[in-house]
Amino acid sequence: MAKDRGDHNEQACKQVDGEMTRFFELFGKRWTGLIVAVLTEQGAYFADLRRAIPGISERMLSDRLTELTTAGLVVREVDAGPPLRVAYRLTDAGNALEPALKELSRWAENHLPSGGEDCPEQFRG
Amino acid sequence: MAKDRGDHNEQACKQVDGEMTRFFELFGKRWTGLIVAVLTEQGAYFADLRRAIPGISERMLSDRLTELTTAGLVVREVDAGPPLRVAYRLTDAGNALEPALKELSRWAENHLPSGGEDCPEQFRG
Repeated sequence: MAKDRGDHNEQACKQVDGEMTRFFELFGKRWTGLIVAVLTEQGAYFADLRRAIPGISERMLSDRLTELTTAGLVVREVDAGPPLRVAYRLTDAGNALEPALKELSRWAENHLPSGGEDCPEQFRG
Repeated sequence: MAKDRGDHNEQACKQVDGEMTRFFELFGKRWTGLIVAVLTEQGAYFADLRRAIPGISERMLSDRLTELTTAGLVVREVDAGPPLRVAYRLTDAGNALEPALKELSRWAENHLPSGGEDCPEQFRG
């Protein structure tokens, strides 16, 4: 299989590209992708997001939403109510991820077996 | 913005889908996506992978490669040498991710600013 690795000197100097690094800097963390996936359907209140993602803690959800807001993917909005509630929705940049997420979802459907259940043990509350 | 959140009862019962959960169970961890991104170009020796991903430790790389192998995305091959070396390449399932990764990369190019450098501080060695 040596040919698959091409010229070794070239490979030895190569570095992963900046776009992939930036993408996975944000999404290579537990929960982040799932939060965005839920919000691609529609905006949601904090409590709804927490319910939609089994196993996530309040603290983790709050931290990840802050990161996504800082990255410009999510907007936080206060509903005056009553009751006063905080809602989250994707920005245009966040919504622009939807086609790629759908492609990842199709890939997972074909290549990551579900093991007969949709919610792996480590994601349960 | 209440309409963006649609019917609240419906939203409150929704859960993130199984495919997204399975995808991010694997890729929602630091380094995993970058390892696959490097391997989509061509197979690589362990040392080359480590060099290609600034900041990754030998232990982390080894653990992530084991997870990817278990998930059926990566194959480990021993080159008898000399010198004896271990190489990694994507399986068909792993290679099937390439179009989606390219789409994520394009999205990051447009929506995640590079801040003038391709390698964020937290990824440096």
